[in-house]
Amino acid sequence: MTVIESPTLASIDLDARYALACKIAKEAGERAVQMFRNRAALEVEHKGLQDVVSIADREVEGIVRKYVNEAFPDDAFLGEESAGGVSDALLGERVIWVVDPIDGTSCFLNGMYAWCVSIGILVDGEPAVGAVFDPNSGELFHAARGHGAFVDAVPLNANPARAVRDGVLGVGFSHRVKPEAFVPFLDRLLRDGGMFIRNGSGALMMAYVAAGRLIGYYEPHINSWDCLAGIVLVREAGGTVNDFFANDGLLRGNPIMAAGQALYPVLTTLVDGPAAQG
Amino acid sequence: MTVIESPTLASIDLDARYALACKIAKEAGERAVQMFRNRAALEVEHKGLQDVVSIADREVEGIVRKYVNEAFPDDAFLGEESAGGVSDALLGERVIWVVDPIDGTSCFLNGMYAWCVSIGILVDGEPAVGAVFDPNSGELFHAARGHGAFVDAVPLNANPARAVRDGVLGVGFSHRVKPEAFVPFLDRLLRDGGMFIRNGSGALMMAYVAAGRLIGYYEPHINSWDCLAGIVLVREAGGTVNDFFANDGLLRGNPIMAAGQALYPVLTTLVDGPAAQG
Repeated sequence: MTVIESPTLASIDLDARYALACKIAKEAGERAVQMFRNRAALEVEHKGLQDVVSIADREVEGIVRKYVNEAFPDDAFLGEESAGGVSDALLGERVIWVVDPIDGTSCFLNGMYAWCVSIGILVDGEPAVGAVFDPNSGELFHAARGHGAFVDAVPLNANPARAVRDGVLGVGFSHRVKPEAFVPFLDRLLRDGGMFIRNGSGALMMAYVAAGRLIGYYEPHINSWDCLAGIVLVREAGGTVNDFFANDGLLRGNPIMAAGQALYPVLTTLVDGPAAQG
Repeated sequence: MTVIESPTLASIDLDARYALACKIAKEAGERAVQMFRNRAALEVEHKGLQDVVSIADREVEGIVRKYVNEAFPDDAFLGEESAGGVSDALLGERVIWVVDPIDGTSCFLNGMYAWCVSIGILVDGEPAVGAVFDPNSGELFHAARGHGAFVDAVPLNANPARAVRDGVLGVGFSHRVKPEAFVPFLDRLLRDGGMFIRNGSGALMMAYVAAGRLIGYYEPHINSWDCLAGIVLVREAGGTVNDFFANDGLLRGNPIMAAGQALYPVLTTLVDGPAAQG
């Protein structure tokens, strides 16, 4: 059993939480895919420019929260659909479940398949567990700190690419940032012979980085519930991720950059642009 | 039965070809997905920068070609994997099957799900039949000129969006063109509140335009086998597509632009940029 010891604090049973995160991700995903098949009946609300939510997101988040509360009533919970009511007091909690019930809501509501359930756990401020379930492929990507990363039972390894022309990069963009935070980067990527996908789900693309399917991922601003599970996956697959939780990333979001170890410094230079190279 | 009459030429049985295109797309897709599950065994060749091919592409194209030759030995055939050997004499053929056995090869070989089989038929120079099969979702998108577009048995309608901020646009890019043929367009799209996906399969994104899942699609250069089926789908779903076959698009490729009727002129302006608006 993996326990996190502290001289002053009670130990935390990470194994039990890891097992629960995997179980919940699958059950929540199975409920979500039922709603996906009847998506014409879902009422859609606009939270902001190109940012939608439906009753499916809220119902699935409720399922996850109920399971967590029953098993670990003292753990804290940060979900995309309830994040508005969260205060800075959350930062003092030792265990925080960080959940996007449906990452890729726009794909989900428009009838495309790039969406998933993302469940991450932060322990003492460090990413500790990640579970990303894609109910359309049936793949469960999962990882716990020090235990490796897996898709179902298969161990994952980040891509050994050394240059952007060696494979496909995942990218993300939202209107929380201006186009100039993204477009010049994309221009440099293409000029260097790179290629990109943006499938609509940051959590799924991070899982693909862990699986070596994508050589890396970059997005100028992402929320913690979209990437915490992915951060654990990529690190446990031997990849490198930026310090996402610096400067209150948990509550305010941050840029995210993830890649195999060889590509990570190349990606850093691409993101920073020529001014930073001089 | 739909026959195409000509005062001087024999009539062409389009219905039989439409039925065959649908049947072949499914059978080819089922063979492709078997190979996808064992993709680690596939040897990969590089045709160009960010352009890969495997034995899976060649084998699946062979399956399609064999069915076509058996049923319609006089029809011409243009497949992605055999296009290199094609001459301008093809342009004189009345019926040309235009086939991408696996559209989205990069996704296929990297273990991602955005790929499909695309089978189009050109009759007397006009797009007449399209069948796009996605074996991962099991969806068959199909259309024949004058008969409407469908996913399986469900009729399709292009999206009624009037502005790019009303939904998600599909985009494509390849290194057959320079980044400046794409990046300024993407910049304008995002400045106008638009959002994009590039999932890696132009044929599948065109099918999504027909289905109203995407509000439109733009790529500065696409090959005919990637888009002919999609062109029939979008038009039969009530959408608008540019004149892709002008200036030898069949053999040399062209830009592609597709959208619902209301969005199409908006997309044209975005693609042309501010200089063309004055």
